[in-house]
Amino acid sequence: MRIAVFGTGIVGRTLAAKLDSLGHDVTVGTRDPQATLARGGEDAYGPWQRAHPAIGLAPFADAAAGADLVVNATSGAGALAALGAADLAGRIVLDVANPLDFSHGFPPRLDPVNDDSLGERIQRAHPDARVVKALNTVNCAVMVDPSRVPGRHDLFVAGNDAEAKQTVVALLGTLGWPADSVRDLGDITGARATEMYLPLWLRLMSTFGTADFNIRVTGL
Amino acid sequence: MRIAVFGTGIVGRTLAAKLDSLGHDVTVGTRDPQATLARGGEDAYGPWQRAHPAIGLAPFADAAAGADLVVNATSGAGALAALGAADLAGRIVLDVANPLDFSHGFPPRLDPVNDDSLGERIQRAHPDARVVKALNTVNCAVMVDPSRVPGRHDLFVAGNDAEAKQTVVALLGTLGWPADSVRDLGDITGARATEMYLPLWLRLMSTFGTADFNIRVTGL
Repeated sequence: MRIAVFGTGIVGRTLAAKLDSLGHDVTVGTRDPQATLARGGEDAYGPWQRAHPAIGLAPFADAAAGADLVVNATSGAGALAALGAADLAGRIVLDVANPLDFSHGFPPRLDPVNDDSLGERIQRAHPDARVVKALNTVNCAVMVDPSRVPGRHDLFVAGNDAEAKQTVVALLGTLGWPADSVRDLGDITGARATEMYLPLWLRLMSTFGTADFNIRVTGL
Repeated sequence: MRIAVFGTGIVGRTLAAKLDSLGHDVTVGTRDPQATLARGGEDAYGPWQRAHPAIGLAPFADAAAGADLVVNATSGAGALAALGAADLAGRIVLDVANPLDFSHGFPPRLDPVNDDSLGERIQRAHPDARVVKALNTVNCAVMVDPSRVPGRHDLFVAGNDAEAKQTVVALLGTLGWPADSVRDLGDITGARATEMYLPLWLRLMSTFGTADFNIRVTGL
């Protein structure tokens, strides 16, 4: 599959590397490739790119052009601007981000919350795209390697397009998530539910000092 | 233990009946006992009271007087007014409610949300009380009978007073929740995390058509 991964942070790179290793044609999308490559420090992109020579880097619009699937792995706050730069008509948009607002410190607030969600905002901004919310309830290392967490544990999907959800569930299967561990929450308004789970995830992470955990829904 | 259960709805009655069956001295607190007894229809209190003759019914302040533990099983919106009628100094307040606002329809909004919670509001209104948030992440039938959901599954506690949390964890043990299935989220600000889980619980409930489910945290 031709896949564009929007976001050059740890989430985007982790997903891009795994999808590349699975044989997909992966391009990372960024606002300004030259600025991304010039970035230094711990978050430097250049060394990572040299370790993954098959993964392209392109402006958002170019990365999305011709992609079958666009992964939104931006910081959440930057998602609408990043996706707004691209033509997403007909494409599957796999939104793995959470609308975390760190401007008041840690733990972050969610914005939007309650009666709207990032997934819905993306769908409204791109009515011809087929947005699927998934993977936003686990750390990126767990996203691509669910065996980091012992036993059976679950993901959630939400989206208006059943075929797009099927494609995403199949892709999640190749990441190691059995189809029966992916709970379908219905249309894209289900994104509110999984985004609002984040405060519990963050509290567990900070209390127990690890991101290698998840939840299993029992009884359903 | 002498226990006051605030709230005459299904949650309060389910908890009161179970605690009574375990040998506790239980009084249900309500704003106006005569009005509660006069209530007709499906939610009538009289027939239930006749089936549980050992369970008292009293105004909030009288129910709390002398109680070792006060359970807040009100609707959430009415919690502060109900608890405000009682002297809670030194008492353990087990807050099982969620601040659900149905004024915009279903699903309800949470109010407060993000940087405050019902648990914290109760603690701030009663600085001398020892508030413990727990049980608000499962249906009341599951609260008192976790075996309705197969396998291991978890609860959360949050509160500022370690001894009060220990007392609550021991009480939960008598309801059928093993101590190692109760995850301690630290101080009362952890109530934000479990209250904000409610939208996911509600979405799962409405999608799968049952309230007999829960989550298990895996990897911690």
